[in-house]
Amino acid sequence: MAGIKPSIPKGTRDFNPEELSRRQYIFQTIQTVFERYGFDPIQTPVMENLQTLTGKYGDEGDQLVFKILNSGDFLKKITPAMRSELDYQDWLPKVAEKGLRYDLTVPFARYVVMHQHELTFPFRRYQIAPVWRADRPQRGRYREFVQCDADVIGTKSLIVETELLQIFDEVFTALGLPVVIKINHRQILQGLAEKAGIPNQMMEMTIALDKIEKIGWGGVVQELQKAGVVETATDVIADFVSISQKPDFSTADLSDFFGDQATAQQAIQDLNEVQTLLASVPFQQNLRLDASLARGLNYYTGCIFEVVARDVPMGSIAAGGRYDDLTGVFGLPDVSGVGISFGADRVYDVLEQSDLFPAHTQVHTRVLLVGFDEAARRFLFPVLRQLRDAGLRTELYPQQSKLKKALDYANKKTIPYVVLVGEDEMQSGHLTLKNMQSGEQISCSVEELVRNLSVS
Amino acid sequence: MAGIKPSIPKGTRDFNPEELSRRQYIFQTIQTVFERYGFDPIQTPVMENLQTLTGKYGDEGDQLVFKILNSGDFLKKITPAMRSELDYQDWLPKVAEKGLRYDLTVPFARYVVMHQHELTFPFRRYQIAPVWRADRPQRGRYREFVQCDADVIGTKSLIVETELLQIFDEVFTALGLPVVIKINHRQILQGLAEKAGIPNQMMEMTIALDKIEKIGWGGVVQELQKAGVVETATDVIADFVSISQKPDFSTADLSDFFGDQATAQQAIQDLNEVQTLLASVPFQQNLRLDASLARGLNYYTGCIFEVVARDVPMGSIAAGGRYDDLTGVFGLPDVSGVGISFGADRVYDVLEQSDLFPAHTQVHTRVLLVGFDEAARRFLFPVLRQLRDAGLRTELYPQQSKLKKALDYANKKTIPYVVLVGEDEMQSGHLTLKNMQSGEQISCSVEELVRNLSVS
Repeated sequence: MAGIKPSIPKGTRDFNPEELSRRQYIFQTIQTVFERYGFDPIQTPVMENLQTLTGKYGDEGDQLVFKILNSGDFLKKITPAMRSELDYQDWLPKVAEKGLRYDLTVPFARYVVMHQHELTFPFRRYQIAPVWRADRPQRGRYREFVQCDADVIGTKSLIVETELLQIFDEVFTALGLPVVIKINHRQILQGLAEKAGIPNQMMEMTIALDKIEKIGWGGVVQELQKAGVVETATDVIADFVSISQKPDFSTADLSDFFGDQATAQQAIQDLNEVQTLLASVPFQQNLRLDASLARGLNYYTGCIFEVVARDVPMGSIAAGGRYDDLTGVFGLPDVSGVGISFGADRVYDVLEQSDLFPAHTQVHTRVLLVGFDEAARRFLFPVLRQLRDAGLRTELYPQQSKLKKALDYANKKTIPYVVLVGEDEMQSGHLTLKNMQSGEQISCSVEELVRNLSVS
Repeated sequence: MAGIKPSIPKGTRDFNPEELSRRQYIFQTIQTVFERYGFDPIQTPVMENLQTLTGKYGDEGDQLVFKILNSGDFLKKITPAMRSELDYQDWLPKVAEKGLRYDLTVPFARYVVMHQHELTFPFRRYQIAPVWRADRPQRGRYREFVQCDADVIGTKSLIVETELLQIFDEVFTALGLPVVIKINHRQILQGLAEKAGIPNQMMEMTIALDKIEKIGWGGVVQELQKAGVVETATDVIADFVSISQKPDFSTADLSDFFGDQATAQQAIQDLNEVQTLLASVPFQQNLRLDASLARGLNYYTGCIFEVVARDVPMGSIAAGGRYDDLTGVFGLPDVSGVGISFGADRVYDVLEQSDLFPAHTQVHTRVLLVGFDEAARRFLFPVLRQLRDAGLRTELYPQQSKLKKALDYANKKTIPYVVLVGEDEMQSGHLTLKNMQSGEQISCSVEELVRNLSVS
């Protein structure tokens, strides 16, 4: 086996202490806000039954779920008859019954249903955890990445939508990252489909509209034609788009456009309520009504949100919305909820590109003890403990080496203080404390050392 | 799809906020000690290439690695010739190239080799993360469980072994859990095999000896016979066992037993050095020389450790040892290291059985705001933000309901303070603050409310 050049699966990453401390900084910022907003953490297994995962993310999503091979003789369920036909669809359920979670939302729905009798509703939970997708790795897209989700389930109150928008605002403001928080309502799009006379083509319409920033209105028209949307409908949609691109576009414009279209007017009322609540609290970031915002996943039914960085093109770095029947598929119908998710890995990439990480996210070792010989290292061993007991992160350079090597070690690890001990120091009981930045050296007793370093 | 009764894979678990906060308490205790000892965190992917994982844990271990099915058409590499022979060995590498990590040690070795030019040696790292094994689930054994590892790689100094023993001592003392920390040295067992004239049967001997607590000396003799160990050797091993079971058994007894056997004497010198260093620092827990301790994994070559709870039978809850060639298999030979691992799930089970968790591991919402109607909830919305800005975990009961229901919610979530607002309160600007434990109610302004709750 020797000589195998080690590697890791594509789309996955190792994190060194520096990167990890920066990631922790992001997770910690989000977690602190989630908790201040009364969310409690839960944790679900990394592996879920495929029965739980499949059929929730569309056909493409099902393909992107990493499946785990049954353990033991995984082929025993393959009959001779099946052997001759190499068909993915037939074989898969026989050889794999578990998968890696694809997001935190479906496991959350499964959790709510399994534990419904222990939970207090409205149930507010957060979960910060990795998920896996067999996507083609590319800029800002990994196969193992972390989602940071907060959901409230069991209430239709728009207060909750508003709180989740506040969380976006507070988190990105705490991270020092300027963002645009886009908001829309699924029923605006449904209302538009109804007004355009194509109530059953709302999905096709939405998919086309969602691409407007990429392909322009001309491209959208082509997509609509391809989807079989009639021209009279396209004219209505054109009016909608032109109004929604006005400079000071607001819900009042939407209201004028929709007139007595009931579906849309209910949605407009929801958006107004959220805006009224938001007007009563501080809000730092840019909130923008984006009437063509759709968010891909089918389960959204009410307000929808998407956050993009103001100055870095990275796609959405956080998103969310209200869903009305997330748990129905697991046997608990009519439970309304609303949730958001931060894509921590994209947030990381944006902060790094914008040079927005604080200078000192990593907490380093504070003190390195260096003994010139074995006797000195034995002398230092109880000193090491005293410094640690005083709460100081301390290391004892464990082996015999040139002083330069030990000091190099301290420099590479950016350890600010080094304590040097040889025969003189042991005899006098006064150790040499070296400040690695200034180069200054002072002589002090163990007690003085502990005191000096504890306050510095 | 509706009506599927949701479940999770066997051997995995959901954790609710209460359980999670207790788990966090364990992780946090361990992490704090690791960091005080100068260890920095790293993170490796959950998925590793099977090439990295297989051949490291023995045949049984290879079977217990969860394999991940190649994505897309995973059958495309299966030739018609292979189709007729359903052989696990032939098929597996074709359909699965990745697996879930089985421990944190092999990924660590892979990490060190991949990143060797960025690292500063001796390299001290910790990692607290889940691992997966397709083991039969049973008491104290899960398929998804967390390991908490600290390793130092790139030094042979026994100072490091001693520090790791101090970490065991400090962690379990901080958790209030009485433990026995067993120590031995692999070269004692090698020396015994040599003294007994069976230098090449050290493994068979060790495996038999390791079972002595379960099967007694009589059982061990049978195992030795079965393994083909000659009777003269068994007599030497019998002497060793009888000495090692003396009440005040120490390294001096070992030294007498081994006489001029060089391998064992070097090991005894190592153990003495560790004991000398330990004698110079505080140590709370019970440290015991256990000459028959073997630790299964083949890669240990020096000191080995195992920790068991003093009062709860649970098997080992932490363990470790020195290895001399962990990274050789990845092309970096002769790098000595030493590491320990805490089995956090078993520690959890022991603390729970011994009722040793502190009363308040979970931090709850502190304040629930309840408005009697929509106007009151709008009135409370900016108050909610003020309380949160003051650092108080606060919720606003989001919907219209009977007061009793909101108070039930507060009670179930053990929220200590409820603020009640109806028309009177809005008019007077004085809110009603209810202490849920005493039942006491006072009237106060928003400013007084923030002040009162911030200090309470």
